[in-house]
Amino acid sequence: VSLERLRKQIDFIVEIDKIKDIFRRTILISKSRNENDAEHSWHLGIMAILLSEYSEKKVNLIKVVKMVLIHDIVEIDAGDTYCYDEKGYEDKEERECKAAERIFNLLPEDQATELRELWDEFEKMETPEARFASALDRLQPLLHNYHTEGQTWKENDITRAMVLKRNEPVKLGSSVLWEYVNEIIEDSVRKGFLKS
Amino acid sequence: VSLERLRKQIDFIVEIDKIKDIFRRTILISKSRNENDAEHSWHLGIMAILLSEYSEKKVNLIKVVKMVLIHDIVEIDAGDTYCYDEKGYEDKEERECKAAERIFNLLPEDQATELRELWDEFEKMETPEARFASALDRLQPLLHNYHTEGQTWKENDITRAMVLKRNEPVKLGSSVLWEYVNEIIEDSVRKGFLKS
Repeated sequence: VSLERLRKQIDFIVEIDKIKDIFRRTILISKSRNENDAEHSWHLGIMAILLSEYSEKKVNLIKVVKMVLIHDIVEIDAGDTYCYDEKGYEDKEERECKAAERIFNLLPEDQATELRELWDEFEKMETPEARFASALDRLQPLLHNYHTEGQTWKENDITRAMVLKRNEPVKLGSSVLWEYVNEIIEDSVRKGFLKS
Repeated sequence: VSLERLRKQIDFIVEIDKIKDIFRRTILISKSRNENDAEHSWHLGIMAILLSEYSEKKVNLIKVVKMVLIHDIVEIDAGDTYCYDEKGYEDKEERECKAAERIFNLLPEDQATELRELWDEFEKMETPEARFASALDRLQPLLHNYHTEGQTWKENDITRAMVLKRNEPVKLGSSVLWEYVNEIIEDSVRKGFLKS
């Protein structure tokens, strides 16, 4: 066993602890505070395991799980960009690519390449795994908004049309989950959590 | 598609959000605060993906990842028991079994059974997957202690002998990681992070 290899792997494992300090707009269902990227990614991992039966196309589960567990690591350098922040989105890709370059390359070359490719694949949303992973990445904050009476929506003046547009990738990943998403959105409007 | 099935799955997904509010003794490497169970589980998921080559016996990776992502869900009801708290350990098993009964049974029966069996298997530490998952569950807080100059060890008056005993399961899961664990422990004593 190469000790150098293990050291690189541990360096990466230590580095990514930082995503526990990257906070998102989403608040916890308990409303105690904002959610961070590590918790969000953990939640998506469990969702992938439980909901993969609804993927539009058959997926390789471990690939989906890897994708969702690593998809936000680039935010260590690039920060979280709020999904309705148009200005922030202008240079999001550039910031995140630079981050991917630095962070994944802490790993031994074979694993750096694997994780970088998984992240690129996720971002492109073309393969069944990437589409299903993206569907989960949309559905999870929607559940949080729904179960906190739309707190983040209200604070940021979000409308039904904006949420529908943001959640469109769910349709590609899973028509069952897309139906469910629509149900939640309509119920949110009905209950006053979301502006129509 | 049965809507009842999806509703049960979503109920479970919403329920487990609570582990984001269950805090451990471990502190983040940034020292900003204590770590919670969701973050810890996420970290183990990535470690499983990156370090499975060191498992003593060949493992089914998705099984290990499932185990580590769900292993602390019972703490929603049972709370976190500090690993050096002998009194807390007296009724830990009973509290956690009761929790497993309630929480996993929110899921449709087939998934409730699968997750319950994975959790039981993890707890028994007999199969290659359970042993490797347990090794990671020991190694991760050790890394945190090492990279925070032993802050939690110092606060709780922990000695090298206690840490060695606590980390013994690593030996069963991976002799490479066990060697690395010993290296970290000795270096921690040398640097004054841990009492000899």
